[in-house]
Amino acid sequence: MSDFGTADEFVGVVHAVLSAHGEGCPHASHHAAGGPPERVDLTHGVPAHDVRAGSLTLWRSAPWIVPGVVLAVVDPGVGTGRRAVAVEVAAAGAGLGGPDNGLLLPAAHRLGPVTAAVELHPWPDPRRRGATFDGRDLFAPAAACAALGTPVAELGSPVDPATLLGEPVPGAEVDADGVVAEVLWIDHYGNVQLNATPEDTGPGPVEMPVAAAPGLRLRVVRAYGDIAPDQLALVVDSYGLLSVCAYRAPAAARLGLTPGQSLRLCRLPPDRR
Amino acid sequence: MSDFGTADEFVGVVHAVLSAHGEGCPHASHHAAGGPPERVDLTHGVPAHDVRAGSLTLWRSAPWIVPGVVLAVVDPGVGTGRRAVAVEVAAAGAGLGGPDNGLLLPAAHRLGPVTAAVELHPWPDPRRRGATFDGRDLFAPAAACAALGTPVAELGSPVDPATLLGEPVPGAEVDADGVVAEVLWIDHYGNVQLNATPEDTGPGPVEMPVAAAPGLRLRVVRAYGDIAPDQLALVVDSYGLLSVCAYRAPAAARLGLTPGQSLRLCRLPPDRR
Amino acid sequence: MSDFGTADEFVGVVHAVLSAHGEGCPHASHHAAGGPPERVDLTHGVPAHDVRAGSLTLWRSAPWIVPGVVLAVVDPGVGTGRRAVAVEVAAAGAGLGGPDNGLLLPAAHRLGPVTAAVELHPWPDPRRRGATFDGRDLFAPAAACAALGTPVAELGSPVDPATLLGEPVPGAEVDADGVVAEVLWIDHYGNVQLNATPEDTGPGPVEMPVAAAPGLRLRVVRAYGDIAPDQLALVVDSYGLLSVCAYRAPAAARLGLTPGQSLRLCRLPPDRR
Repeated sequence: MSDFGTADEFVGVVHAVLSAHGEGCPHASHHAAGGPPERVDLTHGVPAHDVRAGSLTLWRSAPWIVPGVVLAVVDPGVGTGRRAVAVEVAAAGAGLGGPDNGLLLPAAHRLGPVTAAVELHPWPDPRRRGATFDGRDLFAPAAACAALGTPVAELGSPVDPATLLGEPVPGAEVDADGVVAEVLWIDHYGNVQLNATPEDTGPGPVEMPVAAAPGLRLRVVRAYGDIAPDQLALVVDSYGLLSVCAYRAPAAARLGLTPGQSLRLCRLPPDRR
Repeated sequence: MSDFGTADEFVGVVHAVLSAHGEGCPHASHHAAGGPPERVDLTHGVPAHDVRAGSLTLWRSAPWIVPGVVLAVVDPGVGTGRRAVAVEVAAAGAGLGGPDNGLLLPAAHRLGPVTAAVELHPWPDPRRRGATFDGRDLFAPAAACAALGTPVAELGSPVDPATLLGEPVPGAEVDADGVVAEVLWIDHYGNVQLNATPEDTGPGPVEMPVAAAPGLRLRVVRAYGDIAPDQLALVVDSYGLLSVCAYRAPAAARLGLTPGQSLRLCRLPPDRR
Repeated sequence: MSDFGTADEFVGVVHAVLSAHGEGCPHASHHAAGGPPERVDLTHGVPAHDVRAGSLTLWRSAPWIVPGVVLAVVDPGVGTGRRAVAVEVAAAGAGLGGPDNGLLLPAAHRLGPVTAAVELHPWPDPRRRGATFDGRDLFAPAAACAALGTPVAELGSPVDPATLLGEPVPGAEVDADGVVAEVLWIDHYGNVQLNATPEDTGPGPVEMPVAAAPGLRLRVVRAYGDIAPDQLALVVDSYGLLSVCAYRAPAAARLGLTPGQSLRLCRLPPDRR
């Protein structure tokens, strides 16, 4: 996962390094009997420099991408003093490598306790130029070795996991009248994912004050197709969270919502439903 | 193939499920001697919710993507009563899985008679949340099993193929003066694919009434490079269909054409060529 | 690498051909013991028809994508008299296939002397339609064979390497006062790569006359994170070239720069630093 986009060769070059690397991996245990390790592009469309968006992408995806090695780069601080790390979560069979800037921790915390963390050793490479592409020069060689069985602890110098940057993703604040939720994500379809669950709001309709749609009421429905044309609703999305959705149209654009915004959802008393 | 886009993690998560799945596939016959099944992304750039565009993409690509298993998701009705199906076309060695909304049938019909169709069984998965991501929760596990050799008939409950939704793609209407054609597709270069063949129009030039270019005449040429600068022409495209094309420029934008539009191509009598 | 984009099925169909091909490859020597050859998408986001941009993408990436077979298509002349070629650079273990329009030569020259060049034989394929998709019909089958061990010389008719189109990428012009550089590339982040090296300018600051920012002075820094907010600087990028960069923002848009532009960088005398 990265914010590299796919218009340039960045992603392809990282894949080429992953594909070619493997010589000199310390304590690599896997043999390529069934072919080389499979590689999956989670996405390279994280908005440029947006560490928060990248961390949420990993956090959402975590249950499906383990066991395995995760290479994640959203790294505006590359070349500065920020640490380049790898983190092991043994309970999930997961190794995660990337910058120590908050990108990895939400997903790691979701998967289980961090069982090892290292600051990555540099890899000698005569092709290396500049200090701006650790994805190619540092993270990819480490990830290639990890995928071949090198333990995370062998990839660098030990780091105290408590010093790693990043926090678990907070849930919505629930009170007697409803919830205060954060917009976590606007997806490709314009659906607006909140950090609130159906349990937070309860099954009844809610009122959501938004400047673009005064008095907006939202019902909780099961499927996008259950939303009436020109209407909005709350759908329990594929991560179990509530999303504000429209009928085959981008709800985010209609309501002018963006990630990070705070929204209040007020439960409606029975006489106002 | 999907309309997921690549900005989010949807495609990556489906690949992760495809890559990891394989336990418990009924009657799987393939062994991973030469490594796991290869996966190809046909495209994930089908316009959001556009079942027609997705069905045409599969229909155009069909001869090149078989034998094999095709997983296709353009599925605005996910979670509603629409059926989730898999279709076998034995003559092509093809299995196609996706929603029963017209997405699969044009390609299936092109490949040969449907030899089996099932409504997919759900797969137990404790990670599953919500009802909005059958690509991940239902179609990917089924496709993974099919790629490992599970027959389509073992993936669900039998369905009468005659009840599957979708029609073959109609050809142009040919009459004495010319043809009435439909715009099937605007490609990345702005070329305008019609559902007409060179046989439909004959080799001579045609007149095509378009508001943006009154009196437009088009010759049939073999290559984009045979179009003069600032001119338009009909090129026999790589699917054998006529495309309206410009010289290194998007013809669709110049002429204001969009998919689904109807166009008349009038053969020019010899004295008007 | 191509200018196909990923909205259509072009890339997927080429992958399908690469994956399926292999029968009838002359003198193929590789066996698929470790699985089929791995494929990497360098990028398909080269601007449509932009042979120069594609050639620079290959040229930049060359050290990381060899040894191996490179299939590159930016080919506005497909179907015309332009040659379809494959080029071998034995010193790098590289075979490059694509149109003979200048796309391949900068990368080939960077990798070493061309040791063989051929005009590709056509491949018989009953599915072939039209003359507009050599990526699918001609280059992919040849690349698949090359990846299985067919020598480049077996893929076509010999061609004199001296007749291949394309030039090495010129460096900046250095004089007593500074350098005249060309904008080679605007990357995904809006960084502006020049064909100048840190040795060309020396370590001191330079003045760069640009209409959008009169009197602009640029220091050379090591990392993007070393640029102050709202400032611009020269960063030694991951290819060893100088890039004009802003702090987490697109320098190209701020300065109105585009590929191919010529820029003057004037060294500042000590009393003006």
